[in-house]
Amino acid sequence: MFSGRLVQDAALIQAQFDLVLGALDDVDVTRAMAYATQGGKRLRGFLVLESARLHGMDETCAIWPATGIEALHAYSLVHDDLPCMDDDDLRRGRPTVHKQWNDGIAVLAGDALQSLAFELCTRPEVGSAGVRAELALTLARASGAQGMVLGQALDIAAESAEQPLTLPEITHLQAGKTGALIEWSACAGAVLSEADPTPLRQYARALGLAFQIADDILDVEGDSEKAGKRLQKDAQAGKATFVSLLGLDAAKARAAELVEQACAALDAYGPRAETLKDAARFVIARES
Amino acid sequence: MFSGRLVQDAALIQAQFDLVLGALDDVDVTRAMAYATQGGKRLRGFLVLESARLHGMDETCAIWPATGIEALHAYSLVHDDLPCMDDDDLRRGRPTVHKQWNDGIAVLAGDALQSLAFELCTRPEVGSAGVRAELALTLARASGAQGMVLGQALDIAAESAEQPLTLPEITHLQAGKTGALIEWSACAGAVLSEADPTPLRQYARALGLAFQIADDILDVEGDSEKAGKRLQKDAQAGKATFVSLLGLDAAKARAAELVEQACAALDAYGPRAETLKDAARFVIARES
Repeated sequence: MFSGRLVQDAALIQAQFDLVLGALDDVDVTRAMAYATQGGKRLRGFLVLESARLHGMDETCAIWPATGIEALHAYSLVHDDLPCMDDDDLRRGRPTVHKQWNDGIAVLAGDALQSLAFELCTRPEVGSAGVRAELALTLARASGAQGMVLGQALDIAAESAEQPLTLPEITHLQAGKTGALIEWSACAGAVLSEADPTPLRQYARALGLAFQIADDILDVEGDSEKAGKRLQKDAQAGKATFVSLLGLDAAKARAAELVEQACAALDAYGPRAETLKDAARFVIARES
Repeated sequence: MFSGRLVQDAALIQAQFDLVLGALDDVDVTRAMAYATQGGKRLRGFLVLESARLHGMDETCAIWPATGIEALHAYSLVHDDLPCMDDDDLRRGRPTVHKQWNDGIAVLAGDALQSLAFELCTRPEVGSAGVRAELALTLARASGAQGMVLGQALDIAAESAEQPLTLPEITHLQAGKTGALIEWSACAGAVLSEADPTPLRQYARALGLAFQIADDILDVEGDSEKAGKRLQKDAQAGKATFVSLLGLDAAKARAAELVEQACAALDAYGPRAETLKDAARFVIARES
């Protein structure tokens, strides 16, 4: 049920990208934007759509912020892959944007994808002005120097630090780097319907941490062909990860425990929350 | 009157940056953000504050989007200066961010400054939800692949084109590259007070074009020490500019004519618009 829904939602988001990006001038930067938004699991967009459904809303409004968060995620990947950042050649099984074009186009395409994310969250089709302003404000905080970029900055600082990170430090880093956008995505459905986002926030915090632990496990145990990206980067870089700090078995146990916590947070919603619970279970079982 | 106001407004905006950036974690990226937002004329922020005053509003609300547009402008300069873009070592008389830190920090600081711009436009202090959503939506459109980034993309494409740009092409390019943010800034006062932005839009379109023609004249005739940046870049790169297309005298005449048009657009506001008119006159007389 969850995996079929994930594939369907990815197709909805792709169609929305086609619509939105097809309306732009046809230049290298906009071609690179379209390229960067193709493929991927679209887990964040799914969380927006599914948390909206949990509140009885269909896709008409939610597709805009769902596509917006995927634009924002795509921008972060394009910039992260740059030679001056992680220097990766492969992403989602294809050359990264700066390999396909060049570094300048990758910088600009990422920049414009970030702007696009805010446009998609504030278009009149999304809902009331209050909803649109709240989505933009929370997205700005989740993505900037208190959220995702802070996590990346702490990650870079850790590379030149004399001591490896401790467990609380790496948890703080990951709460910014991947946690903040996952939390925004899961809460978006509540924001769209002007409901209390607390249960979804609890779900998302546990899910985000489980997601990152699973990523660290994947980096050690995964198959780079299935993952569509370079693996064992962290071990090669001598970086502290949840696996290096906890050991593989304890990391797996912790991820499973967090998934249980995530599911428990949604119990009050009854069977309607089953797809989101399945999503949490999937996160620690995935191969890419 | 105008020049004193510009200096006062720059100080207000600096104080706001100090407040906002001082609340962030103290890491290289946030230090680079603070560094990148220091100095400069802050013409865009001034336009927000002064167009708000034109509608009878004081700085309490307008300082937020005024600081926001300067954060957005600062991000564009940090990324523009990167080695993979314009490759500049000097900005506002100091080393550029990637020279002071490194390319990765410059990418991240620019990214977080863009997020910050949207945060500052959508904070509750700015005004009604309708105002905040409208500021964010129009800022996203002005800065992304239909606005500023499109202008930069067309600029890059022109470098490898076989034919130099024509006058209509360079006008279209500049309308995106610098015009869109200037227009957003001047219209912000009307948006904040929910008034008709049409006269300010006419003013800003003429002003934006005059600004760019003046920039091209400055690139040829200016003193790089006073300008605080490298000059004669366009001639060295063999790029078409308003000066190369029109000739120096005709470019100056066209800029003066546009400033007159900009001033005329504000006649209906009476003497209250005098500071904005002075700003337009200043734009073609500046040395940096």
